[in-house]
Amino acid sequence: MLTLLEAQNIIENRIENLNLPDEPKELYDPVRYILSIGGKRVRPALVLLGCDLFGGSVSAATFPALAIEIFHNFTLLHDDIMDKSDLRRGKQTVHLKWDENVAILSGDVMSILASRLINESPGAVLRNVNDVFTLTAMQVCEGQQFDMNFESRKAVEEEEYLRMIELKTAVLIAASLKIGAMLGGAAEKDAEDLYLFGKNLGIAFQLQDDLLDAYGNTAEFGKKTGLDIIDNKKTILMISALREANEEQKKSLLNWLSVTDFDPEEKVSAVVEIFDALNIKSLTETMIHHYFEEALENLKNLNRPEESKAELLKFAAFLMERKK
Amino acid sequence: MLTLLEAQNIIENRIENLNLPDEPKELYDPVRYILSIGGKRVRPALVLLGCDLFGGSVSAATFPALAIEIFHNFTLLHDDIMDKSDLRRGKQTVHLKWDENVAILSGDVMSILASRLINESPGAVLRNVNDVFTLTAMQVCEGQQFDMNFESRKAVEEEEYLRMIELKTAVLIAASLKIGAMLGGAAEKDAEDLYLFGKNLGIAFQLQDDLLDAYGNTAEFGKKTGLDIIDNKKTILMISALREANEEQKKSLLNWLSVTDFDPEEKVSAVVEIFDALNIKSLTETMIHHYFEEALENLKNLNRPEESKAELLKFAAFLMERKK
Repeated sequence: MLTLLEAQNIIENRIENLNLPDEPKELYDPVRYILSIGGKRVRPALVLLGCDLFGGSVSAATFPALAIEIFHNFTLLHDDIMDKSDLRRGKQTVHLKWDENVAILSGDVMSILASRLINESPGAVLRNVNDVFTLTAMQVCEGQQFDMNFESRKAVEEEEYLRMIELKTAVLIAASLKIGAMLGGAAEKDAEDLYLFGKNLGIAFQLQDDLLDAYGNTAEFGKKTGLDIIDNKKTILMISALREANEEQKKSLLNWLSVTDFDPEEKVSAVVEIFDALNIKSLTETMIHHYFEEALENLKNLNRPEESKAELLKFAAFLMERKK
Repeated sequence: MLTLLEAQNIIENRIENLNLPDEPKELYDPVRYILSIGGKRVRPALVLLGCDLFGGSVSAATFPALAIEIFHNFTLLHDDIMDKSDLRRGKQTVHLKWDENVAILSGDVMSILASRLINESPGAVLRNVNDVFTLTAMQVCEGQQFDMNFESRKAVEEEEYLRMIELKTAVLIAASLKIGAMLGGAAEKDAEDLYLFGKNLGIAFQLQDDLLDAYGNTAEFGKKTGLDIIDNKKTILMISALREANEEQKKSLLNWLSVTDFDPEEKVSAVVEIFDALNIKSLTETMIHHYFEEALENLKNLNRPEESKAELLKFAAFLMERKK
């Protein structure tokens, strides 16, 4: 069996040796840049693991796997423009290092390049792989749009939020596994079970990301904590808090969500204090646990020998073990 | 034989009945909008004509044809952001009617939707059609990047300029015909001849677009004349003029290219006066004629009965007959 680490290394190596055109530099240099500044190559590794799980040829899955990684990085590049982010993986974002036009266009070419690499899938599954890929890619755009819509809305329901993170984050993890399974020759039902595993895991992962923003350790998590609070993001924590709050707490939360002139540290600690009072941490942990357990159940249902599922179990643990 | 007008009508009808998701509105309304404000549906019509020319089923070519039209409109949408254009086909551009983030993301989803529609090509040609489509789509991005690069450059060589318009404009017209031919079951050599016809015609078309900016009649051409001059675009006219100019004329042109505070009418008439003195109009007409004749030669070489080429000849005339 291929291990997660081996799969990640295969992808890393292929990314390093990706043969992109030299010219125009302003178009392809940003592509090389964003692909070179890291990332754990989780999604493409899942394509390879999904393929390997069904006994497929890992080398035949490599191009579609790269497609998924390039598509993912394209979404990061364009999201960073839309979110006006300065940093990505600790480095300057493309629209700051070059400019916004360069970021738009180099993102565009990445999206097309991803389609071009999907087109390297074996003939027997090409149409179905492309179908899953393009459907998922459209869903990721939908998720990003919902996310942006939520920013300007006062209230967001938990259900809407869960649907948004499903679209924005979970379906691409799910599709990576499913496409891998299809490339490995899996039956439709098995590919779908693997999809559900990825989807539930993806939701758990995003909920944990929300949790870590307020309760993570900056040094270990690698991001500054409280950024979501400062940016008025309607995370699952804020949504739960607004729902659970008494009148006074709600007034205070809404006040913090509307003030434009504030001391960031003061805002973060005031909001976290309300989260604490409402037991939001444990409430969120329960939700994460729920989706994580669902994912494990999906994996259990998967019609494959238990020992062959070991790497996916390890992956699930790897994804969730980021320090709190 | 299918006529150009019939092909355009088929596409227009399919565009009107395109079934896009309702939600999120901010993602799909701009797609509906840009597809509804017109355009002559030339490229998708060429897919159908190319297919029909080789006796293929027009209905099997309709989805890939729509893909080309949606891809083309995606590039317009993103180009309008990059060029900060206020109007597209006389209507407000998407980034002004909504905002820039909406324009980025709805463009992104159109590009993916195009890939999704390409995926409806018949199995026998799917991979090859997708290969031509994605290669062409990347080239269009390259062309747009070169175009933007040229804006900030003092000098652009004629050869570079011709390569830029080939990438930005001509290859998509060429690929539309070639994809149509492939869908119609054409031999590779024939599909390639049709590609060359489209490429040369596309270059002639763009050169004429340059010419009309300075020498067109606003009412008939539908655009305000002189905009390229006001925007310091390195059109073929400006490139030829800078090459042909004597020292005094060159100094004057470079001065007009660098002043930031000017009366638009004065600038346009001063630059056109230099064009006139240098005989740029007739020089450009000679170039257009050259590419147009090349295109006709490509069509002549095409291994099809002469009478079946009538609609493509009519198309070539239609494309070039915009009033001067």
